[in-house]
Amino acid sequence: MELLFGYHPVLEALRAQRRRINGVYLGKGKGAVRRQAIAESARRAGVAVEWITAHQITAMVGHQRHQDVCAKVSPYPVVALETLLDDTAKSNCPAWLLLLDQVVDPQNLGAMARTAHCAGMQGIVIPKDRSAPPSAAASKASAGALEHMRVAYVTNLVDAMVRIKEKGMWVAGADRDGDHTIFEADLSGPLAVVIGGEEKGLRPLVRKHCDFIVSIPQTGPVGSLNASAAAAIIVYESFRQRLVALRHGA
Amino acid sequence: MELLFGYHPVLEALRAQRRRINGVYLGKGKGAVRRQAIAESARRAGVAVEWITAHQITAMVGHQRHQDVCAKVSPYPVVALETLLDDTAKSNCPAWLLLLDQVVDPQNLGAMARTAHCAGMQGIVIPKDRSAPPSAAASKASAGALEHMRVAYVTNLVDAMVRIKEKGMWVAGADRDGDHTIFEADLSGPLAVVIGGEEKGLRPLVRKHCDFIVSIPQTGPVGSLNASAAAAIIVYESFRQRLVALRHGA
Repeated sequence: MELLFGYHPVLEALRAQRRRINGVYLGKGKGAVRRQAIAESARRAGVAVEWITAHQITAMVGHQRHQDVCAKVSPYPVVALETLLDDTAKSNCPAWLLLLDQVVDPQNLGAMARTAHCAGMQGIVIPKDRSAPPSAAASKASAGALEHMRVAYVTNLVDAMVRIKEKGMWVAGADRDGDHTIFEADLSGPLAVVIGGEEKGLRPLVRKHCDFIVSIPQTGPVGSLNASAAAAIIVYESFRQRLVALRHGA
Repeated sequence: MELLFGYHPVLEALRAQRRRINGVYLGKGKGAVRRQAIAESARRAGVAVEWITAHQITAMVGHQRHQDVCAKVSPYPVVALETLLDDTAKSNCPAWLLLLDQVVDPQNLGAMARTAHCAGMQGIVIPKDRSAPPSAAASKASAGALEHMRVAYVTNLVDAMVRIKEKGMWVAGADRDGDHTIFEADLSGPLAVVIGGEEKGLRPLVRKHCDFIVSIPQTGPVGSLNASAAAAIIVYESFRQRLVALRHGA
């Protein structure tokens, strides 16, 4: 079991019904009214709720960023890549995945998961090596979106890219020096978008296995967009193109 | 004087030459080679550099998020709204501003400033009341982009919106229930984009003074995009439309 913390992660874990939840702990002090929504969700799910002090919650999770809410839950429910690809193939919409090549900051993972969820992407693929895992901190940073998102955890991202291409998807890497800008490239079909890590971007072998590389036009002397802003921009440009394609009956 | 901290804020403050810099302090320990770029910039700018211990820098700034770099600088160089509008009118490009209605988190302010800078927006307008100021923490979160961005600090955001409209710009508010999606609305002309605060979105009076409200299409049960991701998506959709207009000789 692990500890989820924060208002949204616990509420969304209850709603998503993907994790086993062995107990919800709510602060009985200031702001307890807002936490009634969680108590009510827990009651409907048959999960025990304990109202304790904020200090007790801090002692449980080891820090103060818990918003007086935590829960004992089973580990994050990752899915196998093959399951994700099979389910994607069954969908009415063109396949749409986000691949993260060594994104190490749980804040960035959370922000990207939130964006992917809001856009309606079908899943996220993360390599096990040198990447932020779908942790409680990442769930917090995603405002609970990670509790609904499907995440495949793979040993080798390049192997996953090969499998994804075999399924008829295009693999578009995001990098500063792209073949095309995101506005020129066709991002409307079955697509996997690959975002590089915060410091080094795409690894050479990952880049080599992309079908094409797209860049975000940028001006000004300062380096570049941050990883989660770049992901949001690319994902929503793809969203726009998919919408246009849908309306034109593509 | 105040203390800037972090590699990028200090380097970009030296490059931007907008603040008076009374001394740069660099950690002489591990990673000092990378900090030579700052020492070199400081030397060219005639700014004194002291190589001290990381502990001494921590003692100066009061926390450890300094990456062994800090500088004594004059306060953030805000500009008057009228100056910003006059300069915008002189530009060859259609006016393009970002207005923040009580964004309180310096991380979000920094992320938005970075996006605005990368997109080539001409300025940011922030109300003095209940908003994150352009602080050292915000500069850090912007990876130093704030050191180049022009920021007007206004007493009353609605008054500023009235002035902006008088200059012939459209004012587009971003909110969940918009008149149009960002893909339907015309964001190609002289434009001020208004982003609401993290918790409450646009205040009613600010919303009322917008020419129109745009929303970002979203799916999925979890609430909404975070404020800085939403800003990135809107700003870059506007970027795309401006590019299209430019190519069509609009």
